[in-house]
Amino acid sequence: MTEIKPQLRVVVTGCAGFIGSNLVDFLLNTGHKVIGLDNLSTGNIENLEEALTQKDFNFHEVDLFENNNLDSYFKNTDLVFHFAANADVRYGAEHPRKDLEQNTLVTHNVLEAMRKNMVHKIVFSSTGSVYGEAPIIPTREDSFFPVQTSLYGASKIAAEGLIEAYCETFGIQAWIFRFVSILGPRYSHGHVYDFYEQLRSDPSYLKVLGNGHQKKSYLHVDDCIKAIDVALRNSNDKINIFNLGIDAVCEVRDSINWICQFLSIDPSIDFGSDAKGWIGDNPHIHLDIARIQKLGWEPSKSIEQGVKDTIRYLQKNEWLFEK
Amino acid sequence: MTEIKPQLRVVVTGCAGFIGSNLVDFLLNTGHKVIGLDNLSTGNIENLEEALTQKDFNFHEVDLFENNNLDSYFKNTDLVFHFAANADVRYGAEHPRKDLEQNTLVTHNVLEAMRKNMVHKIVFSSTGSVYGEAPIIPTREDSFFPVQTSLYGASKIAAEGLIEAYCETFGIQAWIFRFVSILGPRYSHGHVYDFYEQLRSDPSYLKVLGNGHQKKSYLHVDDCIKAIDVALRNSNDKINIFNLGIDAVCEVRDSINWICQFLSIDPSIDFGSDAKGWIGDNPHIHLDIARIQKLGWEPSKSIEQGVKDTIRYLQKNEWLFEK
Repeated sequence: MTEIKPQLRVVVTGCAGFIGSNLVDFLLNTGHKVIGLDNLSTGNIENLEEALTQKDFNFHEVDLFENNNLDSYFKNTDLVFHFAANADVRYGAEHPRKDLEQNTLVTHNVLEAMRKNMVHKIVFSSTGSVYGEAPIIPTREDSFFPVQTSLYGASKIAAEGLIEAYCETFGIQAWIFRFVSILGPRYSHGHVYDFYEQLRSDPSYLKVLGNGHQKKSYLHVDDCIKAIDVALRNSNDKINIFNLGIDAVCEVRDSINWICQFLSIDPSIDFGSDAKGWIGDNPHIHLDIARIQKLGWEPSKSIEQGVKDTIRYLQKNEWLFEK
Repeated sequence: MTEIKPQLRVVVTGCAGFIGSNLVDFLLNTGHKVIGLDNLSTGNIENLEEALTQKDFNFHEVDLFENNNLDSYFKNTDLVFHFAANADVRYGAEHPRKDLEQNTLVTHNVLEAMRKNMVHKIVFSSTGSVYGEAPIIPTREDSFFPVQTSLYGASKIAAEGLIEAYCETFGIQAWIFRFVSILGPRYSHGHVYDFYEQLRSDPSYLKVLGNGHQKKSYLHVDDCIKAIDVALRNSNDKINIFNLGIDAVCEVRDSINWICQFLSIDPSIDFGSDAKGWIGDNPHIHLDIARIQKLGWEPSKSIEQGVKDTIRYLQKNEWLFEK
């Protein structure tokens, strides 16, 4: 953390989510006191199994959009990790207000709770989707004014802007991380999930959205958490913005090959014809990670390792598909 | 307008505001049918005096944030000019949710009303404030990823992102204009207003926020309306983004000199010590306007003419200060 202090009081929103719950475990292992908030709409309480046994963890089932009285959770807090979000980029068209409410407005609610309780530090999980279809690849944090291509990206750049304005207006300090897709234990949505779900019910056939040549970058959740820790320890500007990814891409077809290899299956594959898998899909994502690398962080796991680690987790946690 | 058609049905939100009402007059003179919406919170019904006498103008006093039933206004509409906004950048800290509600959420309400009524074209009044403290001056539309420095700028970049995402997701076409400060008839807030208000009650003394060396760019409202018309006629991409300004800056001190010259007064002037006039003030604004110039538009009035035209208007409309 940013201060040398035996124990910080830390709030983690979205604490039962994929990344949030991995973060909670890391923070507890580091010796901090963690207040975890989640409405359990997409988060899984199972992700907190270990954390819930520890005295330094307090979990509250709370909806950050509906609840108008968040103050009690934020009192005497040193640092907020705001990781609660509607995190699936694909379904914007089906519910055109959900990303706005769950990502933009909830971020404002969190910022207001921080302001009222004089909490001065926020860590925010943003996304590479804020770059839209980037004209420059690999994409740096600062090299062009983006044009949004999804309601998800729009909701996240709006949240980033709110956080930055609160930094300037109310003296808050922020660490904003723009993630590529994250893989690894507790992963619960995205293409690996979808493919595995299909293949477990029929290992002989796989339907793929788009032509499979989409180029995407993936980071393992362990590397993601380490990067956040490195950035908090070593970057102390008023506003600290970092891409978090890996300096590589794979095609969806590569990912399918790794999955099939791991599962020892050979399905017939039904590709779509479009370069995009869905409206707003970004067919080429590759973030420049030089800024976080300069702080001494390097990803330790390849995309292939990430994909296989994810399949291993999904195989061991079949309950995910019974929900 | 973008189509050769004898008469379009056009909705103008913020129709009683400074820019909105000038736009309404232009649209009526061009032969269009205008549905004007305004909640009259900062707009002045007096600005619509001429328009209200015309059969092709329909005014509705409606609050686009509170009202959940906007559909009737948007039926059979060819084009929406969404100019309603909380337009004063200075007071974000005093009401931290107002810009979000009036600018971001109202834009979403307008987009939803458009989507439900199959309206496919929107013109949006954004702001040079979305660039924050620009690292590149003069500032182009696309040259860096901005960091927000005001709640106003944050609310407008959020609205831009929503509009862009709706273009991609729901097939809407957009013209987004990032204005510098606008001057001229019906101007009703900003530094010229504040200075004139002070000087009309005491012509011997003027208090200035900041050290007066802030460099800002100003565009006359007549030139602004002409630029919008030129862009609509000549730029037909899915998303069209233009800076609207003038290729010049003045210091606040220059503006004061022109005002005093025009009023034939010589007050003692009490400058502040800060480079910024208020939290979030941007001490150097200068937009690159090459993109709109390429379409054949040029501003016809200097900043000095704009300032003097504004003072002339304020002198003739003392009722503004009695409200």
